[in-house]
Amino acid sequence: MVEIKELTVGEKVSLRTSSKTWEGIVLESYDPEIVLLKLSSGYNIGIREREILEAKVLEKQTSTEKKKIEQVINKKLPNIAMIITGGTISSRLDPKSGAVISTDAEEIINMAPEIKAIANISKIEKPFMKFSENMGPKDWKKLAETCETLLDDETISGVIITHGTDTLHFTASALSFMLGKLNKPVALTYSQRSIDRGSTDASLNLICAAKYAVSDIAEVALVGHKDLNDEYCLAMPATKVRKMHTSRRDAFQIINSEPLAEISKTEFKILREFNARDNSRKIKADIKFESKIALVKITPGQDPKILDFLASEGYKGIILELFGLGQAPAQDSENNWLPTIKKTVEKGILVCGAPQTISGRLNPNVYSTGRDLQKTGLIFLEDMLPETAFTKMGWVLGHSSWVKEKKVQEKMLENFFGEFNKKISL
Amino acid sequence: MVEIKELTVGEKVSLRTSSKTWEGIVLESYDPEIVLLKLSSGYNIGIREREILEAKVLEKQTSTEKKKIEQVINKKLPNIAMIITGGTISSRLDPKSGAVISTDAEEIINMAPEIKAIANISKIEKPFMKFSENMGPKDWKKLAETCETLLDDETISGVIITHGTDTLHFTASALSFMLGKLNKPVALTYSQRSIDRGSTDASLNLICAAKYAVSDIAEVALVGHKDLNDEYCLAMPATKVRKMHTSRRDAFQIINSEPLAEISKTEFKILREFNARDNSRKIKADIKFESKIALVKITPGQDPKILDFLASEGYKGIILELFGLGQAPAQDSENNWLPTIKKTVEKGILVCGAPQTISGRLNPNVYSTGRDLQKTGLIFLEDMLPETAFTKMGWVLGHSSWVKEKKVQEKMLENFFGEFNKKISL
Repeated sequence: MVEIKELTVGEKVSLRTSSKTWEGIVLESYDPEIVLLKLSSGYNIGIREREILEAKVLEKQTSTEKKKIEQVINKKLPNIAMIITGGTISSRLDPKSGAVISTDAEEIINMAPEIKAIANISKIEKPFMKFSENMGPKDWKKLAETCETLLDDETISGVIITHGTDTLHFTASALSFMLGKLNKPVALTYSQRSIDRGSTDASLNLICAAKYAVSDIAEVALVGHKDLNDEYCLAMPATKVRKMHTSRRDAFQIINSEPLAEISKTEFKILREFNARDNSRKIKADIKFESKIALVKITPGQDPKILDFLASEGYKGIILELFGLGQAPAQDSENNWLPTIKKTVEKGILVCGAPQTISGRLNPNVYSTGRDLQKTGLIFLEDMLPETAFTKMGWVLGHSSWVKEKKVQEKMLENFFGEFNKKISL
Repeated sequence: MVEIKELTVGEKVSLRTSSKTWEGIVLESYDPEIVLLKLSSGYNIGIREREILEAKVLEKQTSTEKKKIEQVINKKLPNIAMIITGGTISSRLDPKSGAVISTDAEEIINMAPEIKAIANISKIEKPFMKFSENMGPKDWKKLAETCETLLDDETISGVIITHGTDTLHFTASALSFMLGKLNKPVALTYSQRSIDRGSTDASLNLICAAKYAVSDIAEVALVGHKDLNDEYCLAMPATKVRKMHTSRRDAFQIINSEPLAEISKTEFKILREFNARDNSRKIKADIKFESKIALVKITPGQDPKILDFLASEGYKGIILELFGLGQAPAQDSENNWLPTIKKTVEKGILVCGAPQTISGRLNPNVYSTGRDLQKTGLIFLEDMLPETAFTKMGWVLGHSSWVKEKKVQEKMLENFFGEFNKKISL
């Protein structure tokens, strides 16, 4: 038996814990309490030092760890492209700050060796490296342009985008609008735990994203854990998904809709209709976007002056997160929003309402107050997510011809990419 | 057989539909397509005219309909008080506008005759009649004062508040803070469908609220449907509940916590620890509240100038709905929020963060960006709901002694009424 501290990177070792004995190559670990092993399956596993009962060195200092896992192109398999943008899925722990820092593409692929039986990763693009809380409309545009190039490349079957989780649902819906009717699949994926953790959710998400990228579903989907088990992912429609938990691996939930597919390592079950792959068609990204848009979540008794402020700042559009079926404080309230909304609309600002409850559908016709609100010129966006409403509004207002022809209200109510779901009664 | 249009209010009739034959007294219906019957069970039922195959008059024009159902005080039963505030639960359809309008207390009690076997409704208060989208801090104060009087009345066992659904969760948490440690139960309840509809959810909610009001659980709870079946209600902790659907009867969901009790017509199952009833103790409502508070939901790439606007308007506190584990756009973003947050805090404005994902817990220690954000002076409110954070901030800042003694940050992090849940790992 050896002291654990004596284990050297590159050694082949056997580590016994109370439940199992692990054999593998010691990797550099960024957490001093965790020994990181590359197993013969190709997977990395993190083992807590205090759980190790016995450690044996089986082979001194192999060069395996340093050697890059070669990306052998298998001509029988389809090629997919990967866009890496940063976030936890491309991070590992920084031992100095204790925080996670970004790392490189190869390590991501190594995390899910099963991909090599699904597809060749023939191209990797890094248009920028950012945690997703720092992303915005300019990044969405860059991503859409990168996707366009890759999707129009004849050698590529589909695209995987790895992305931080915080604003992933905003990016997903923005890309839906900017990419238009797709020719090939685009899978956005993530992880909630960084890839040098034994408990990472990155592997399954990457494998399922790769399976989606070679499928026939030519739609933007967010591919991620279905539940807390590490077995199934869902391909979630990009305009109907939202981060609903700070930390769970199944943080992304479908709202007011259904999954496109359920995916596991062994299965691929299509669950509803989809826009089918058409490799021969080329696409053209439509990245026009008005970034002077705001989202305002209404609170009880709130002063509507915020709308005057946004107007004075030159905002072109405002999403109001309304109460319930679509209400705002009205004449019986300390602050009546209706005159201010009307005035804002009259200034030529596009004002739309989306549900603060997140789930369900707005309906201005149940209460007379809803009809009064509609009379101000506010557009009720039915069952659209506030986050999707936000990216859609930027995209719609980005089209100056629609603005000139006064078509923006009509366009906000047009169902472009499943942002409205007329099928389920809510 | 008679024509359905000939049915007169007050007649005892028999109506045959394809599934069942109903006997009861014809009530005035506010929907021309629906015949409203009072059954011998005491329930009202709405039957669509087009579904009626045969209608027979059994007894002409009884006076039952006009006669008020007498509230006989049964001395063996506890007395409860009811506060009616408006909303769908006290509404019926207005045939002119097609919208719902408020109605009176008696009709509410008639909707759930089972209450008569649970408790006497010995007092009814109507401090105001409003749909809940129009309610705000002033109304919360009035409600708290009304509760105080009723809870300190020796003859009263508990209080039921009927309330619109739109901002019910804001009111529930505001009342928790304002009422302090309770002596008796306070149940807030609601309905999503108005009470002259056959499909109303008001009856079960009222029955379960009455059972809660006579229980030993001296806490503010929101009592409402557990699921879509009309069988079980949950008593949901007032600081950990949110309206999560525009229209479903189980619209209210517990977030980051567990129910206090599961209630049906026949059962009352306590599910966790609670503050026990103490009839001998008097309470004193603490209704101090600072209404110059704002909630800002951050969107990708957003301009932080909104904080300068709020400062210039004299706001004393701001809840930021942060991304993920507690992030805001930082140095890699088009708009770095950190300097503006720091400046806002330096102006003496209380700035706190709550999770935009709704579920889960903030954790500034996972990413260095979270720690940078914390260094601005922003207070991370862990697993607190943004809506609860909003009412708590108003209540905390309302206490000028806490403001003077610079205790507001500390008070925001004190667990007063279960607004933090340390028990579940998130």
